Amino acid sequence: MDAEQFRRLGHALVDWIAEYRENVESRAVMSPVRPGEIRARFPREPPEHGGAAGDVIARLEADVLPGITHWNHPGFFAYFPSITSYASILGDLACAGLGVQGMSWQTSPAATEVEEVVMDWLRQMVGLSDAWTGVIHDTASTATLVALICARERTSGFAETGLQRPGGALTVYGSTDAHSSIEKATVLAGFGRAHLRLIPTDAARAMRADALAGAIERDRAAGLVPCAIVATTGSTNTTAFDPIDAIAAVAERNAMWLHVDGAMAGTAMILPECRALWHGIERADSLVFNPHKWMGAGFDLSAYYCRDPQHLIRVMGTNPAVLRTAQDGQVSNFRDWHIQLGRRFRALKLWFYLLDQGVSGIRARLRRDLANAQWLARQVEAEPGWQIVAPVALQTVCLRHAPAGLDEPALSAHNLAIGRRINDAGRAYLTPSMLDGRQILRVSIGAERTEREHVAALWDALRAAAAER
Amino acid sequence: MDAEQFRRLGHALVDWIAEYRENVESRAVMSPVRPGEIRARFPREPPEHGGAAGDVIARLEADVLPGITHWNHPGFFAYFPSITSYASILGDLACAGLGVQGMSWQTSPAATEVEEVVMDWLRQMVGLSDAWTGVIHDTASTATLVALICARERTSGFAETGLQRPGGALTVYGSTDAHSSIEKATVLAGFGRAHLRLIPTDAARAMRADALAGAIERDRAAGLVPCAIVATTGSTNTTAFDPIDAIAAVAERNAMWLHVDGAMAGTAMILPECRALWHGIERADSLVFNPHKWMGAGFDLSAYYCRDPQHLIRVMGTNPAVLRTAQDGQVSNFRDWHIQLGRRFRALKLWFYLLDQGVSGIRARLRRDLANAQWLARQVEAEPGWQIVAPVALQTVCLRHAPAGLDEPALSAHNLAIGRRINDAGRAYLTPSMLDGRQILRVSIGAERTEREHVAALWDALRAAAAER
Repeated sequence: MDAEQFRRLGHALVDWIAEYRENVESRAVMSPVRPGEIRARFPREPPEHGGAAGDVIARLEADVLPGITHWNHPGFFAYFPSITSYASILGDLACAGLGVQGMSWQTSPAATEVEEVVMDWLRQMVGLSDAWTGVIHDTASTATLVALICARERTSGFAETGLQRPGGALTVYGSTDAHSSIEKATVLAGFGRAHLRLIPTDAARAMRADALAGAIERDRAAGLVPCAIVATTGSTNTTAFDPIDAIAAVAERNAMWLHVDGAMAGTAMILPECRALWHGIERADSLVFNPHKWMGAGFDLSAYYCRDPQHLIRVMGTNPAVLRTAQDGQVSNFRDWHIQLGRRFRALKLWFYLLDQGVSGIRARLRRDLANAQWLARQVEAEPGWQIVAPVALQTVCLRHAPAGLDEPALSAHNLAIGRRINDAGRAYLTPSMLDGRQILRVSIGAERTEREHVAALWDALRAAAAER
Repeated sequence: MDAEQFRRLGHALVDWIAEYRENVESRAVMSPVRPGEIRARFPREPPEHGGAAGDVIARLEADVLPGITHWNHPGFFAYFPSITSYASILGDLACAGLGVQGMSWQTSPAATEVEEVVMDWLRQMVGLSDAWTGVIHDTASTATLVALICARERTSGFAETGLQRPGGALTVYGSTDAHSSIEKATVLAGFGRAHLRLIPTDAARAMRADALAGAIERDRAAGLVPCAIVATTGSTNTTAFDPIDAIAAVAERNAMWLHVDGAMAGTAMILPECRALWHGIERADSLVFNPHKWMGAGFDLSAYYCRDPQHLIRVMGTNPAVLRTAQDGQVSNFRDWHIQLGRRFRALKLWFYLLDQGVSGIRARLRRDLANAQWLARQVEAEPGWQIVAPVALQTVCLRHAPAGLDEPALSAHNLAIGRRINDAGRAYLTPSMLDGRQILRVSIGAERTEREHVAALWDALRAAAAER
C-alpha cells in the first residue's frame, strides 16, 4: 500500500467509523451469529498474493460487522461501560501512525514524558496526593498481578529464591465479592489458590475488616505469613466499596501490602462527592483503575499508581546490555515498570480525550449516569414484584423480578429468561449474574450515548419480558 | 467531539500520518531532545474545559514530534525492526473505531473467530503442523511468563499451593544469550533468580545441549526439580539459534516443558529456506514470535502457540458468574488464554496486512533484508581493521572496528564512541551492545523502507565515524 492508497482508504475508513457510530442504534446490541458463522466466511489458507486491501471496508461490513457486539451502543448495559470516544480513536490512530516503541526513554522520549504528564493529570483528577506515581498498564488484571508480585517480593525480602523458600507460606486476602482477577493473580504469582482467603462481606457487600483481622490472626497462629490484601473500590457485580481506611489499619498493623482494585469505579473519584467512598486510599501501597472503562479513553489504558516506584523497578527491572542507553539514571525507562518490554504510546489517546472533554466535561457525563442509575432504582423499588438487590452506589443497578408464588429455583430461571429475552431482542444488552446463589439482572449504565430515554426503554423492556412468562 | 469534527480531524490526521511517513527520512532518527524537554511543554494541571481537540495535530507536530525516535525511518538499525505498515495502521483504526471487547466469544464473536482464522493462517505461514493452536498475546515477555507459569503448574501437579509446596525447588534453564525476559519471567513467576540456570553457548552462540543435560543432572542430584527450558530461536544480540531438536530430546527425557522464544526471528520461518534453523520445533510445548517486529503488523501483536490449549485454560481460566454466557463450552473465550481479561480486536491489523501484502509480498521483503545483511557482512569482512563478531544468521550484523595498536578497554571505548557519533548525527540509529564483555556495534536491518542504499550509507558513516578518533 502506498501513501496515496493509505490516504484514500484512511479517509473512507474514518467516514465508515463515523457512519457506524452515528447509526449504531439501528443494530442489535448483541451479535446474533452462531458459533463458527464468522469463521466460515474466511478462507482456510492465507492469501498467497496481496493487493486486496482496497476491499477491506466492504469486507469489514459484510464479514465482520455481523459478529460484533456493540459496546458503544446506547442500549449496552452489560459488563461495564467501555467507552471509546471519537477523540480517543484519533489518539489511537496517531499512536499507530507514529509506530514507536516506548520501552526506554531514548526509544521515544515523548512516549515516556507525555505519559508522565497525563498520569500526573489523572492523579490530580481523582484527588490523589503527589506521593503517588503512575504508569500505564494494559489492564487491571495485569496491574493486580504486578501488585501481588511486588507484595510477594517485599515480604520475602527480594528473595533470590522467589516463593521457593523455607518458612511459612505467604497468604493473600480479598473479599468474597472481589474480582476474579484477584484469584487469577494469586495463582499466577505462585501463591497457590489454597493461600487465598476470601473474607465475608457485610450487608452492603463490603469486606468486613474485623473478619479480615481475624483471618490474618488465625493464619499467623498457624505459622503462615500474611502478605497482601486486595481491597475493592466498586466491586464488579454490585459496585460495593470495601472500607479502605479500616482495612489499611489492619494492613499496617501486620506490615502487609494493600492494593486497591478500582478498575471500573476509580473513575468516579473524578467527582469530589464520590471520594468518601475510598476514604483511606492514601494509606494503600498500590491502586489501579481503568480510564478505558467509564472514563472514555479507549481500551487498553489502565492506570497503575504506586507509592514506591523504586520498589516496582527493583522487582520488574532488567538491564541487559542491548537496552542500556546514555540517559539511564536520569529518566524513567517504563519497561522496568511492568511485565512487558515493548510498549505503545498509549498516553496519546488519553491526552487527546482530555483536550476534547476537559475535566468538567467528564464530570458532567459521570453525573448524568449516576442520576440515571438512581432513577432506574426508584422505578424498580416503586414497582410491585420487583426488587433492588444491592445498594446502588454508582451506575450499576442489580435487580430482580420476584413475583409472589414462585420458589427460588423458579425465580432464578425466570430472571435468567428475562435477561436472555432482553439480549436476544437486540435493543439492549445486560448481564444476567448471580448474587448469593440467586440469578439476578445486572444493569451497568454508562455507555457514552446512553441517555435517560434508553434507560427508560430498558425498564419498559424488562417489565414486558417479565410478563412473557 | 461530534461525528462531523471526527471526520474532519480524522481525514487531516490520516493525511498528516502519510506526510510524516513519506518524509520521515528528513528527520533525525533518534530524538535529540534532552530529559524533561518534552514534559516542560505541557501544563502541570489537566485542562478544566474541553473543546481543544481541534488543535491536536498542530500540537502533535510542535510538542510531540521533537521527542519521537523514528522506528519506521529507513535509517533505523537499532533494537529490532518494528514495522507498522500502512495496512496495519488502518487495522488499528478499525479496531479503535469498533471499540469492542473480545474477552468472551459473546462479547464480539468476530473478535474471537477472526483471531482464530488469522492465527491459523500464521501457523501455516511459518510451517507449523496443525497440532498447534495460536492466540494473540501482547508481547513475547508476557507470553514467556505465561509459558513458565504453565510449566510450573504442570510440574507441580496443579498444586493448589502454587510454589509454596514441600519438596525440591523447581528450576528453569536458558542460555547465557537468552533474552532478559527469561530472567524476568523466572522472577515474576516466583521461581526465584537463584533457580535460573544460564547454560553456556558454543562458538556460534547456541546453547550447548550437553551442558544443559549436565546442569539438569546436577540439579536432580541436588534434590531440585528441573521444570522448564527456554530455547532461543534468534537471540536478541546476535540472532543465534539454539539447537531445538537436541534440547527437545533433553526436555523429553526429563519430562520438562520446552518453550521456544522466537520473538524477532520466528518471522523468518515464513521463508521455507530458514526453517532448518528451528528444526525440532514440533517437539516443543509452546512458542512465541512477534508479527509486530519484522513481519509488519503494528505493535502489539505477539503470536503464542501451544500444543495443549486445555492446559493453558486450566491455568489461566476463571469462571465467575458475571462472565458466564450461553455459548460457554462450544466456543473459545480468549480471556482464559492469557493474563488479561479485556482484549482488543488485534486480529484486524494482521488480517488487513495479509490482505495487502500476501505471503509472497512478505517473503520478498524478508529476502531483501537477508541479502542486505549478507552484503554488509561482506563489506565489513573485506575491510582491514573491521570484524564481524558473530555469525550472521538473519538480518542482524554484529561488528566492530578493531584497529591495531589499541588494547581492549580502548577498543570498547572506541566502538561505543562510533555508535554514539552515528546516533547523534541523525542519519542512522543503531544499538551499541556488549558481547563477551566487549563493546560491539549491532546493526539490525529490516525497517520497511530500508533499502540497500541505506545500508551502504550506514557503512560509509561507520567508517567515517571510526576515522574521527
